Amino acid sequence: MFTVIKQEGRARRGVFTCAHGTVQTPVFMNVGTQGVIKGAVSAHDLKDIGCQVELSNTYHLHLRPGDQVVRAMGGLHKFMDWDGPILTDSGGFQVFSLAGLRKIREEGVTFASHIDGRKIFMGPEESMQIQSNLGSDIAMAFDECVENPAAYEYAKASCERTLRWLARCKAEHDRLNALPDTVNPRQMLFGINQGATYPDLRVWHMQETAKIDCDGYAIGGLAVGEPTQVMYDVIDAVEPHMPKDKPRYLMGVGTPSNIIEAVHRGVDFFDCVMPARNARHGKLYTWEGAINIKNEKYKLDERPIDPTCDCPACQHFSRAYLRHLFAAGEMLAMRLAVLHNLHFYNTLMARIREHLDNGSFEDFRAEYSAKLEQKL
Amino acid sequence: MFTVIKQEGRARRGVFTCAHGTVQTPVFMNVGTQGVIKGAVSAHDLKDIGCQVELSNTYHLHLRPGDQVVRAMGGLHKFMDWDGPILTDSGGFQVFSLAGLRKIREEGVTFASHIDGRKIFMGPEESMQIQSNLGSDIAMAFDECVENPAAYEYAKASCERTLRWLARCKAEHDRLNALPDTVNPRQMLFGINQGATYPDLRVWHMQETAKIDCDGYAIGGLAVGEPTQVMYDVIDAVEPHMPKDKPRYLMGVGTPSNIIEAVHRGVDFFDCVMPARNARHGKLYTWEGAINIKNEKYKLDERPIDPTCDCPACQHFSRAYLRHLFAAGEMLAMRLAVLHNLHFYNTLMARIREHLDNGSFEDFRAEYSAKLEQKL
Repeated sequence: MFTVIKQEGRARRGVFTCAHGTVQTPVFMNVGTQGVIKGAVSAHDLKDIGCQVELSNTYHLHLRPGDQVVRAMGGLHKFMDWDGPILTDSGGFQVFSLAGLRKIREEGVTFASHIDGRKIFMGPEESMQIQSNLGSDIAMAFDECVENPAAYEYAKASCERTLRWLARCKAEHDRLNALPDTVNPRQMLFGINQGATYPDLRVWHMQETAKIDCDGYAIGGLAVGEPTQVMYDVIDAVEPHMPKDKPRYLMGVGTPSNIIEAVHRGVDFFDCVMPARNARHGKLYTWEGAINIKNEKYKLDERPIDPTCDCPACQHFSRAYLRHLFAAGEMLAMRLAVLHNLHFYNTLMARIREHLDNGSFEDFRAEYSAKLEQKL
Repeated sequence: MFTVIKQEGRARRGVFTCAHGTVQTPVFMNVGTQGVIKGAVSAHDLKDIGCQVELSNTYHLHLRPGDQVVRAMGGLHKFMDWDGPILTDSGGFQVFSLAGLRKIREEGVTFASHIDGRKIFMGPEESMQIQSNLGSDIAMAFDECVENPAAYEYAKASCERTLRWLARCKAEHDRLNALPDTVNPRQMLFGINQGATYPDLRVWHMQETAKIDCDGYAIGGLAVGEPTQVMYDVIDAVEPHMPKDKPRYLMGVGTPSNIIEAVHRGVDFFDCVMPARNARHGKLYTWEGAINIKNEKYKLDERPIDPTCDCPACQHFSRAYLRHLFAAGEMLAMRLAVLHNLHFYNTLMARIREHLDNGSFEDFRAEYSAKLEQKL
């Protein structure tokens, strides 16, 4: 269930309820691709840094350890010991970006595993079955994420097929949820809008997608190399055609500024590997902009990463110590950096929600959208 | 200050007090070579797993970030945010095992950094100065750790020099502690016994070393490739000549069984990289023996590593999940495994102390010394 409790322009402050709890939106989902957050961060750590929704990956968990293993262990919540909401992406994006030797047919996709080259088939039904085995709260529809740039005719044929796949996803999802031994019978399904960077395709595909009753709708296939303004233009084009009473999820986006701009355009859910990946390379967020902690200038800096931050890293450790950990190649560097950056993103969302509650989101946007893009 | 509060045969139950607190002995010191425990474990995590003493390395911290940096940051306690006792080893072992192109003279050792080949000189005074800058609670004397096997004449000349170096360490240590701006004016100094595997050299060197007033005495140069029984024989030979009222520290040892056997022979302090290194390779300790968590047979094992264990890994995660994390190459595997193995060692020492308190240590030794060597 999703309720918009306040609106400022197109920006929405909402509350979303699923089998494993209530989520305050706008929300940034913390990515744990393989059922764990990269950088030695556990589900328990997520609790300490304000994470509301954990996101795992159908493709990766199907390959390793296998969704049947996860199911046998009681589902992904029990496996990784996370009792909050979980969204699983469908595997579509990974099949098209990671796997080798793809062959796409109406039925689905045959591809080679990026781990061992093993041939695997995944179509809408298989993706739903895997996600049902994982027992996530939100399953994502199986879609084709076309390359950027994509030829118009290819993009058109692809998003027509993605639409047919959504109907099959929906039917299979309903069937699986009704089985007596399903892991999470209250699993929801989100549909995904595609259409490359062609506004007319995007709009047509969104209108058709909205006719299939889903629990939420996502915009996929963005942040794949197109200019930022093009991404904003696509959101602007699609948003009016997204159901008002359902959450909207912008997949794989993005920088703090991207998130602020997309909230402004009516988006509720986000996810991105960027904050954790940047962290592992020493790029850390502060409320004044980003810093590179490996820089020589932090050698004797006694301050925490961000003096206003109350994350586990900033509460206890100096920039000098963190810089030393990076220089010495110590894993704790990764852990503290990832905890900080994810905490920063979760706090960013909390501040966005607070400003929406107070009707001051546009002031917040004016102050921070550009500032948070700065490199210090 | 050190007090033996109970004895069972040669095994001693003691209490040791230093600038940063009181230590119950026998104790296993948890190794954080570069001012951090390998495997994404912080000083705060050490509190949760029952660590009493953290051990860092003079050689490594001198090279990176530099002891002057640590001093400028207020000393190692503040730098790594650990308020308990810290022992720093002297760098002697690392100079002789890690560094390249060594040249040993009476004055000290010139060697090439293992990081960048830079030429560095370290003698007794330099080692004391570095450890003073780090501000540890216990500084170790600068010694030569000879290779195994060592020729008798070389070992004899070497331990004579190590004895002369100890006198210089003591003088420099006293001078540094008396300086008005020293980081930890209550820093203690432990002397180190050497003599390779020659009982007469070991005994002579221990007798001479004991004449120099130190706060504790260590047996160094063992567990470097000699058979286990030879190590026990050396301890048996040296122990009667170690001061009864000072703690004895067996450096770099060892397996759970080694520790039980050395406690039986009158040793109070231990350290070893083995539990953390084994953890990072998936070898985990249980009270029935060691397991290799990467093994296929744990794929669907819902039990924790050790059902009797209350470490952060065993409290929340299954063997199946841990196995998955190792297979997927996730850093959290390392973190959970290291937390478990260090917790196991700290618990082993707590159980040894409890049995010493109750006068049942020999029963404990009879039950566990062999059992804990088993591979399951």
